[in-house]
Amino acid sequence: MVRPVRIELLTTGTELLLGTTQNTHGAWIGQRLLRMGLRISRQVTVPDGQAVGDAMGAGLAEGDALIVTGGLGPTSDDLTRESLAEVLGLEMIEDEAAMRTIEEFFASRQREMAPANRKQARAPVGADILANPNGTAPGLYLPPRLSGSFNCAVFLLPGPPRELYPMFEAEVVPRLRALSGIEDVPDFLELKFAGVGESDFHQGVDEQLEVIDGLEHGYCARPGEVDLRLMGSPCAVLEARRLVEKSFGQELVSDDGSVLEEVVVRKLMDQGKTLAIAESCTGGLIASRITDVPGSSEVFHYGFVTYANQAKRDLIGVIGEDISEHGAVSEPVVCQMAEGALQRGDADLAVAVTGIAGPAGGNKEKPVGTVFLGIAERGRETRALKQFHPWGRDVFKRQVSQSALNLVRLALGG
Amino acid sequence: MVRPVRIELLTTGTELLLGTTQNTHGAWIGQRLLRMGLRISRQVTVPDGQAVGDAMGAGLAEGDALIVTGGLGPTSDDLTRESLAEVLGLEMIEDEAAMRTIEEFFASRQREMAPANRKQARAPVGADILANPNGTAPGLYLPPRLSGSFNCAVFLLPGPPRELYPMFEAEVVPRLRALSGIEDVPDFLELKFAGVGESDFHQGVDEQLEVIDGLEHGYCARPGEVDLRLMGSPCAVLEARRLVEKSFGQELVSDDGSVLEEVVVRKLMDQGKTLAIAESCTGGLIASRITDVPGSSEVFHYGFVTYANQAKRDLIGVIGEDISEHGAVSEPVVCQMAEGALQRGDADLAVAVTGIAGPAGGNKEKPVGTVFLGIAERGRETRALKQFHPWGRDVFKRQVSQSALNLVRLALGG
Repeated sequence: MVRPVRIELLTTGTELLLGTTQNTHGAWIGQRLLRMGLRISRQVTVPDGQAVGDAMGAGLAEGDALIVTGGLGPTSDDLTRESLAEVLGLEMIEDEAAMRTIEEFFASRQREMAPANRKQARAPVGADILANPNGTAPGLYLPPRLSGSFNCAVFLLPGPPRELYPMFEAEVVPRLRALSGIEDVPDFLELKFAGVGESDFHQGVDEQLEVIDGLEHGYCARPGEVDLRLMGSPCAVLEARRLVEKSFGQELVSDDGSVLEEVVVRKLMDQGKTLAIAESCTGGLIASRITDVPGSSEVFHYGFVTYANQAKRDLIGVIGEDISEHGAVSEPVVCQMAEGALQRGDADLAVAVTGIAGPAGGNKEKPVGTVFLGIAERGRETRALKQFHPWGRDVFKRQVSQSALNLVRLALGG
Repeated sequence: MVRPVRIELLTTGTELLLGTTQNTHGAWIGQRLLRMGLRISRQVTVPDGQAVGDAMGAGLAEGDALIVTGGLGPTSDDLTRESLAEVLGLEMIEDEAAMRTIEEFFASRQREMAPANRKQARAPVGADILANPNGTAPGLYLPPRLSGSFNCAVFLLPGPPRELYPMFEAEVVPRLRALSGIEDVPDFLELKFAGVGESDFHQGVDEQLEVIDGLEHGYCARPGEVDLRLMGSPCAVLEARRLVEKSFGQELVSDDGSVLEEVVVRKLMDQGKTLAIAESCTGGLIASRITDVPGSSEVFHYGFVTYANQAKRDLIGVIGEDISEHGAVSEPVVCQMAEGALQRGDADLAVAVTGIAGPAGGNKEKPVGTVFLGIAERGRETRALKQFHPWGRDVFKRQVSQSALNLVRLALGG
């Protein structure tokens, strides 16, 4: 039986309220819970210090589970453990096993343990110590009975994401599952699309998804991409997936969380092909995205950032007269860029972009946001297409890089 | 007289708790308030709907000022206005001026107003309407007396950043200033540094900053960069700045919020020089950062992404034997890359990087994270340096791009 669980999230840290650090825990934990069919009821941020205790009191009063991040460090303003014990009137003791783990953490890194780290092994009597393989601060779990009449489970977790995320996965997820009585986690599927916008889904498919029994769905749109989340019974999720694929099969990039550049690199590897890239308006962003993927050096050897006309001529053999006649942002030029990159980059496949990122450089015929994309392949005719993305320089670069990588994906067989 | 103001921030929106949208309002508002010498006491996020009223009640009880974002739209789950009136027992009326503004917004865009937009002109009796030049939702301000015994000022603001930020600046900042009695806003200075870490500040300068009377200071560190915030009386801020510049004058990138790539492009423009870039391990990121800056096409013409050895030979004339003898990640190779980029890119200045981003490719002598950087200039000897950044592929790329851009900045006269 599944019972609804009211989850309170308390993120602590003065830097989060000064705005010098972006609070990303809420979004990460929200997404992770969503995959289990759970959600955060309320998220509160308070500075380090006294406010933590007050906020924990409010969370305990409202929640079935209270998740607290931060404040487990060794310094004087890290008071989360002590505040919790005080709010609940629990005695604190030094946990021997936790102490050993902290000592081992330092020993394995050949660093000396500071005396202040000793307090990180302290815990309210009866709490579970949650192992932290990635840092010195163990987490804590208090089962509901320890909080008396609040009857609220409490998780104290470290703040740094590289410590928090693995601990959440290993220690929090199974306990929340048990608390909520979730045995069959609902199916969760995240489909990533490129070359299609959220509004395309609203024109048709969305209405059909609405009426699938036992399905929840939602979108997340970014420049040039849309994620579709499907959640519900296995049957409902399968039905939804089939329905969506019927309309947008070509545009489906991945169903396993892989981003477009990862999919492109994997396809190139599988097919034993290499890619060359010639960029004008994206200025290196396409190459940078490809090289974000480990192992990309196998499939990507040459990138040409031809930001000036002279560079387009010199590096990839664009004909100067075509630039004069048609302009640097034109179909003939982008085709020559792609073909030049293919030849000079000794590649199986080449993609090229030339456009007007703005804010300057536009005119009536080719306003800011105009871009031509070209793709050249050994043994196939070079293709070009024109797009228009008039939403500012950053969005333009991102959107064009997305379109270019998607062209490569489609050329490799979608 | 300045009185302390307890500011409660309530951000509303189901998408913020599902994690599908990153909550960035907290950081933005936190930073804006910090520049006035104010700070957020608590930040709460709740989903759209009933929870908004409860959270407003808690905020009114604790705060001197309550800032609420989101929920001012025309749809059925946008209930912020109504919830506030209910919590405070105030009557709602349709504000004529607000209605006219909404009608004009639609008229100026030649769109028809939907009937649902009518509710956006409703306001509790006595509230100030806050103009929204960038959207249909006017904001609302309730002076403290309207909240009765709570004696708390309330701001209801739209959620979309392009509507929120200008309204915050124009309508919220002056009212908060009046509420808190702040006449002289404290001086605020953000100094950006490159080529130095936060720990360098802690070894010396930090202790001296601690004892400056009337100064608050704080750090924000990212790969390859540190921001130092100084806040306080004009004298204290000036003294702190002088002190910091004595130790880290070379490393100071900007005092006006400009990021490193903006400073580099500005210096190149001022000096009428052009830059060429040859990248191996950063795979286009340095060029992409330079071309993030509007107008960079004036000073950046050629980028070479030579990810393979063959590309280093072909495009920028690195001698094959030197690659065999010293390895692609070596001082002779990076110097030849920089010199080759200078010549082939017809530039005044060229920067080159070659390194091992990982996870594969390292060995005992040159482990993952090793990088060589080189800089070549017309009429000067080419210089190279070696660095080590073993913190994963993403951080490595960012860190190396930062080091490379900083080298260019220093070559241009710091």
